[in-house]
Amino acid sequence: MKLDPLKKFTEWLDKEKKHGQNKMPTACCLSTIGLDGAPNARYMSIKGVTDKGIIITGVSSVKGEEMNKTPKVALTFWWPTNFRQVRIRGNVINLSEEDDNKIFDSCDERIKLISWASNQSKEINDPFKIEKSFKQYSKNFANKTIPKPKHWHAYLIEPEYFEFMELDPKAFQIRLVFSKCEQSWEKKYIQP
Amino acid sequence: MKLDPLKKFTEWLDKEKKHGQNKMPTACCLSTIGLDGAPNARYMSIKGVTDKGIIITGVSSVKGEEMNKTPKVALTFWWPTNFRQVRIRGNVINLSEEDDNKIFDSCDERIKLISWASNQSKEINDPFKIEKSFKQYSKNFANKTIPKPKHWHAYLIEPEYFEFMELDPKAFQIRLVFSKCEQSWEKKYIQP
Repeated sequence: MKLDPLKKFTEWLDKEKKHGQNKMPTACCLSTIGLDGAPNARYMSIKGVTDKGIIITGVSSVKGEEMNKTPKVALTFWWPTNFRQVRIRGNVINLSEEDDNKIFDSCDERIKLISWASNQSKEINDPFKIEKSFKQYSKNFANKTIPKPKHWHAYLIEPEYFEFMELDPKAFQIRLVFSKCEQSWEKKYIQP
Repeated sequence: MKLDPLKKFTEWLDKEKKHGQNKMPTACCLSTIGLDGAPNARYMSIKGVTDKGIIITGVSSVKGEEMNKTPKVALTFWWPTNFRQVRIRGNVINLSEEDDNKIFDSCDERIKLISWASNQSKEINDPFKIEKSFKQYSKNFANKTIPKPKHWHAYLIEPEYFEFMELDPKAFQIRLVFSKCEQSWEKKYIQP
């Protein structure tokens, strides 16, 4: 049977979604190489999973600049309700404008308006100013299709490495690793 | 008043501990630069907070090799119960053998035994083998003080950057940043 870690990832994600106690099962830590060369990281919600990899989105922001400079990231999920961790490492692939537009269209209105209202990561004197800007855009776009802002992009993370860890608090961690080797996957267990 | 982001971090951590719903408030994502130069990350529990920074521990492992090669990391906390995120970036400082021993002594017995039983991150044919090794060490060290294994180390993460984010699902994120500038801290708000 062909090894398919992306399928296993989707199964684990679905189990976590069904568990019900986790309000944000799609949240993970996105690790990048900072513009200063040191690690940088933040939590975000993944947009979806395709047969090629994982879709993430972002407006023009520090993480976008970082991924342009070094198109390698880690996505790390921690699901304490099921005592599971998934570690993914992979390449950042820019999507076509057509795909970008499709993905933006599928976002909910609030996300769309924030992507217009916020100049993400830039300094702001008054953190409540953003609310004004948001309201202004809500008005401008009322009853209209909200177009994708130029600076908004989606990215495909094409995995090269997966680690699935299950933690049994009364026993030991089981750590199963899949590494990409040319076009196929190799599987092994590693020590906790 | 002197800015003290480490104090603010401790206050937020204490609040999360008191909340009660979070079983592992000290868990965070540790991001490193992999030996291949790409980002690497995994969840771990911090050991403690001092007035100098954050203490993490690890046996001889991939993350130890990575931190030796590039002594820069990110520690990222996500506390969904309080809708808060803390992002920390900083330098990895090796501790003295005396401090290493003290910190090891303060770990609970299970952690001590695992640090003897597991050759962390190395391949293992049978994931249940580790249980045998653990039992053997439990027997060997029964009623004895468990010494620190040579390969076990603690590290001080000396922060240079903090971001405190509060997410109000009905309103907007408030993002407060502290950056170290020589010996003091600078504070600013950034956009969500």
